[in-house]
Amino acid sequence: MGEPFEQLLSQRTSSMQRNPIREILRALAQPGMISLAGGIPAPETFPIEDLYRINETVLDRYGPAALQYDLTEGFAPFREALAGYLATKGIDADAERLLVFNGSQSVLDTLGKILISPGDVVALESPSYLGAISAFSSYLPEYVSIETDDDGIIPESLERVLDQHKVKFVYLVTTFQNPTGRTLSLRRRQEIAAIVKDRNALVVEDDPYSDLRYRGEVVPPLQSFAPENTVYASTLSKIFAPGLRLGFCLAPPLIREWLYIAKQGADLHSNTYAQALATEYICGGFIDKQVPKIIDLYRPRQEAMLSTMARHFPQEYRWTKPEGGMFIWVEGPAGVDAEAVYWKAIERKVAFVPGKYFYVDPSDGLATMRLNFTRVDEAAIESAVAALGAVLKEFGAN
Amino acid sequence: MGEPFEQLLSQRTSSMQRNPIREILRALAQPGMISLAGGIPAPETFPIEDLYRINETVLDRYGPAALQYDLTEGFAPFREALAGYLATKGIDADAERLLVFNGSQSVLDTLGKILISPGDVVALESPSYLGAISAFSSYLPEYVSIETDDDGIIPESLERVLDQHKVKFVYLVTTFQNPTGRTLSLRRRQEIAAIVKDRNALVVEDDPYSDLRYRGEVVPPLQSFAPENTVYASTLSKIFAPGLRLGFCLAPPLIREWLYIAKQGADLHSNTYAQALATEYICGGFIDKQVPKIIDLYRPRQEAMLSTMARHFPQEYRWTKPEGGMFIWVEGPAGVDAEAVYWKAIERKVAFVPGKYFYVDPSDGLATMRLNFTRVDEAAIESAVAALGAVLKEFGAN
Repeated sequence: MGEPFEQLLSQRTSSMQRNPIREILRALAQPGMISLAGGIPAPETFPIEDLYRINETVLDRYGPAALQYDLTEGFAPFREALAGYLATKGIDADAERLLVFNGSQSVLDTLGKILISPGDVVALESPSYLGAISAFSSYLPEYVSIETDDDGIIPESLERVLDQHKVKFVYLVTTFQNPTGRTLSLRRRQEIAAIVKDRNALVVEDDPYSDLRYRGEVVPPLQSFAPENTVYASTLSKIFAPGLRLGFCLAPPLIREWLYIAKQGADLHSNTYAQALATEYICGGFIDKQVPKIIDLYRPRQEAMLSTMARHFPQEYRWTKPEGGMFIWVEGPAGVDAEAVYWKAIERKVAFVPGKYFYVDPSDGLATMRLNFTRVDEAAIESAVAALGAVLKEFGAN
Repeated sequence: MGEPFEQLLSQRTSSMQRNPIREILRALAQPGMISLAGGIPAPETFPIEDLYRINETVLDRYGPAALQYDLTEGFAPFREALAGYLATKGIDADAERLLVFNGSQSVLDTLGKILISPGDVVALESPSYLGAISAFSSYLPEYVSIETDDDGIIPESLERVLDQHKVKFVYLVTTFQNPTGRTLSLRRRQEIAAIVKDRNALVVEDDPYSDLRYRGEVVPPLQSFAPENTVYASTLSKIFAPGLRLGFCLAPPLIREWLYIAKQGADLHSNTYAQALATEYICGGFIDKQVPKIIDLYRPRQEAMLSTMARHFPQEYRWTKPEGGMFIWVEGPAGVDAEAVYWKAIERKVAFVPGKYFYVDPSDGLATMRLNFTRVDEAAIESAVAALGAVLKEFGAN
């Protein structure tokens, strides 16, 4: 006899599993461990001191309205604030068209819910954000991969995928991608916009990292080149506080309407109080002060990681040099098993995420690794990367 | 040609629609309208003054941890606080077994996700909470109804339903039910516990209202009589603040594990900051001061509604006299169309919810109405109920 109630489970549970990265993060509680795993902001980036004041402003200004049931689409002053924030990115967002969700993760889940019937095709860049794969998989899609290079997805590969499959949507993290740190180039954005418009295809552009730019030129969102074909999803998790779970999206009208209906049935609406805090964070000018501070904290951490890698990693390894974001992506020579490297690194008190988790095909990416540089300071990064380099050299010597 | 992207929608959208009550609430913005619709707490029940202090305590005590990514199962101090709160209800809840969600609505959605494959049978008391029907329907179940009387669901009807159908789960609001205000009697709880244990059936007990008791004896949750067969779901929306979206559940181990996995994929975790506020609200003793205040506010409102109904409603109408909660349920004589009454009442600036929305079969409950007494004060209730009584008499005279 199996577990009680096992016969009650839905078919879709067959495709659902614990997120391996969140499970890896659980294992990191060991003392002395330096984590280059995860994609977690440094706690010192949170505007704790400002929040004493922001809380008071919210209670003074909104009173009970900040604590009451509210509209499914989101707290109206927050949507106004978001529209202003998005305008600075070149996105023409009417507050009426925005929808607020519990983190961008729940945008992705809800998109899966309204778009994916079992067997439908979703196109992913390869490698792709693991959380998106987790969110979509519970609706039983098939995945097809779009090839990528240092400039992001390759337009010809996208064309081929759209021509050969009945694709429900294409999912992309366009700027400082998770896991690779890569940014889709301006020229590629224009090409891809033309391709999706030509084929009336739908793109989901997930953009959590674009504010974390440490050098180089700003690139406008893909959404701004193909607004009628793009669901633009983002979050305040990387520029305010992830614990507030503030995600949002801007979608074409029909998609917006179904996202609204699905969200209403799933959770009525998102946390009003957190939305009110974020409203004051944006409108009170705190964000304009805080984001440069976050950048000033992360830039030297990334530089420390890149320069230590250059000194300590074996020369047959390649890695990305992103202009921003939270991650560096490492590709080892064929034959290296990054999971074996992981276990050896854990013994040396260094953690990272083996890159294979970011591929839909389990035989891909075996020699790849994702390194995060936002969580710990330069000294810890240097010591961790040096230790990891030593582990890699041992593997090379086998 | 249809709307762009219409061909992209999943099959499940065919069963999804805007929640008619939330849509009715939108229409209530007219000046002078007195709403007996909705199920919304009075704004004066929110502990605004306490929240200035609670916010400071949270920032002082938890600092960045209240703003950071956190565990999918919920903020550990909040789960500890909830376990203590549930113990006062006779529920033996280990903090390790609790799961926190974005309102109890998202417990219901996630249960639907892990349990319902298209065509699976869900058993509902009739009438039933509309939000639950919305949450489950997106997973394409079939519904069977369990008959009810003034003591809640009728055990023989439950037995018949369980014997004749392969039921995935039974959904019940056991105390001060929405929409009827009815409470499943102690004796019935014992009988129903025996029935579900005997058949190894799963019950979802939704319990948002039991703290709002204005008179009579406390009845322990059904969960306490059949803990291994019950998913107990509740919320702080009615005793703290609904805008914080704090729901939670206690489930048998296998169900808990799948709820965890599904939640991880859907939204990673719930708002950490709101959970920290609730922790201090409970552990700082604020809840023990606030709930009696809420009861003292609502009890006279309910009494005003009941006594005005007795004076002004036609004698062929029947209604419930609940010992607590937020609703009174009215049954008119056969032939009355409560939706026509609704439109006439709106002209007189009184709103309520036609009861038919709470039935799965659209031909049921045509003469029923749900009245809420928590949102407006006694004077407004008396004038609204008197006006509604006049409308009902006009209908009787037709």
